[in-house]
Amino acid sequence: MVKIPKSHPRYWSLYYREKIIEGMEKGMTAKAGLIAHGRGEAFDYLIGERTIKPAEEAMKAAVAKFLLAECPVISVNGNVAALVPKETIELAKALNAKVEINLFYRTEERVRAIAEELRKYDPNIEILGINPTKRIPGLEHERGKVDEDGIWRADVVLVPLEDGDRTEALVKMGKFVVTVDLNPLSRSARMADITIVDNIVRAYPKIIELAKEMRNLPVEELRRIVESYDNEKILSDVLLHMRDRLTKLAEEGVWRKKELKA
Amino acid sequence: MVKIPKSHPRYWSLYYREKIIEGMEKGMTAKAGLIAHGRGEAFDYLIGERTIKPAEEAMKAAVAKFLLAECPVISVNGNVAALVPKETIELAKALNAKVEINLFYRTEERVRAIAEELRKYDPNIEILGINPTKRIPGLEHERGKVDEDGIWRADVVLVPLEDGDRTEALVKMGKFVVTVDLNPLSRSARMADITIVDNIVRAYPKIIELAKEMRNLPVEELRRIVESYDNEKILSDVLLHMRDRLTKLAEEGVWRKKELKA
Repeated sequence: MVKIPKSHPRYWSLYYREKIIEGMEKGMTAKAGLIAHGRGEAFDYLIGERTIKPAEEAMKAAVAKFLLAECPVISVNGNVAALVPKETIELAKALNAKVEINLFYRTEERVRAIAEELRKYDPNIEILGINPTKRIPGLEHERGKVDEDGIWRADVVLVPLEDGDRTEALVKMGKFVVTVDLNPLSRSARMADITIVDNIVRAYPKIIELAKEMRNLPVEELRRIVESYDNEKILSDVLLHMRDRLTKLAEEGVWRKKELKA
Repeated sequence: MVKIPKSHPRYWSLYYREKIIEGMEKGMTAKAGLIAHGRGEAFDYLIGERTIKPAEEAMKAAVAKFLLAECPVISVNGNVAALVPKETIELAKALNAKVEINLFYRTEERVRAIAEELRKYDPNIEILGINPTKRIPGLEHERGKVDEDGIWRADVVLVPLEDGDRTEALVKMGKFVVTVDLNPLSRSARMADITIVDNIVRAYPKIIELAKEMRNLPVEELRRIVESYDNEKILSDVLLHMRDRLTKLAEEGVWRKKELKA
């Protein structure tokens, strides 16, 4: 990995950029995954590279829904494995959920590389999606493969950094779908039941924390949180947050400014 | 290249995504170039994937400045060569400018691959930057290399999809710098003298057209166009355009919407 000085103003952004490139070199991340990461970087920049309130509300609802679920599953793809392998396992434990490898550009080599990466953090973790025997209706062969014991029978699924077609197909199957996506306008963001518009490297630690805090809440309270959640409003709030940031920048002017204010 | 059906609603976006991946496979485009392309996609999405008025004004000023220049140079990097190799040559001819290969992650293999790509469209084109002997002050060794007959002595340079450090260093050298960048907040966008916030695949054909139209304008008229140009205002206008688009989308709501209006 390229060494970046910790003092660099864009240190974290550059660090995770290198992580994604490393993910590709390890055989986990697809080339299109690099481009997708770039799209995420741009939206994160507009958000202000911090977890905003609408994202926190979405996280709370997602945790409540997961704690109420009978068969919750967390999906992992090449970008997720490059950015948050350790946190994925911690999150699965905190939410008592299964982990399933699920790839848009599925190859057995990539599945193996991701499984290997996850096992670095817990050699005994059960990983689904290695030999998937079922298919999501409406998706072409390789892209639709899912594990019978995982997404196939799940009632609630977390599909972070997911393709829009697949998110939509899972919703059509009747799954309750949670996604993490920095682009509030992506088809995944628009189609999911709960959309967490945040960088996954900030979101996962925060969701783990919330899961630990909320674990002992009464079922009635968890239900109330899920029922009062409004994804339409949350997505609009995210867009308005970006809008307000752009308005401020336009008013202050950006030309020949060395630094931009958050 | 992956075959994309022409009927796909995201055809052009997917087409150029494949072009960038192909550019990497040809040895022209760096891995970080794939991530940069993704950032561009995100901003293009916010703009509405069309050439907006502030971009057209910036193009006109850029053409006027190029037509007035004594030694104009157009820079080419791995992303530019992947997306608009033919248009780069046409643009250089229309503006009577030299072409220089200029790479942030410079390797001789990448320089050769880009030169080869450009020569497919004109085997006799003069390509600078193959054996650069000068250096831009303030940049580390490999990143600062420029051609004595090109950027080194140029008065006006077009550096599309350029790194912020390099744009700033060129401005400090006293060059008049024009850039094409989809991110109006990038350091390149903020530092250049003229910033064209548009997708290069739309911008280059449009600039070629403008160059042909404006070629016979009197010098006084060209000077007037350059002098009345205000990059500060243009950048703010772009931000306000994005803001208005986000406001409309937030008001209409995006959740479970199949299509978003431009």
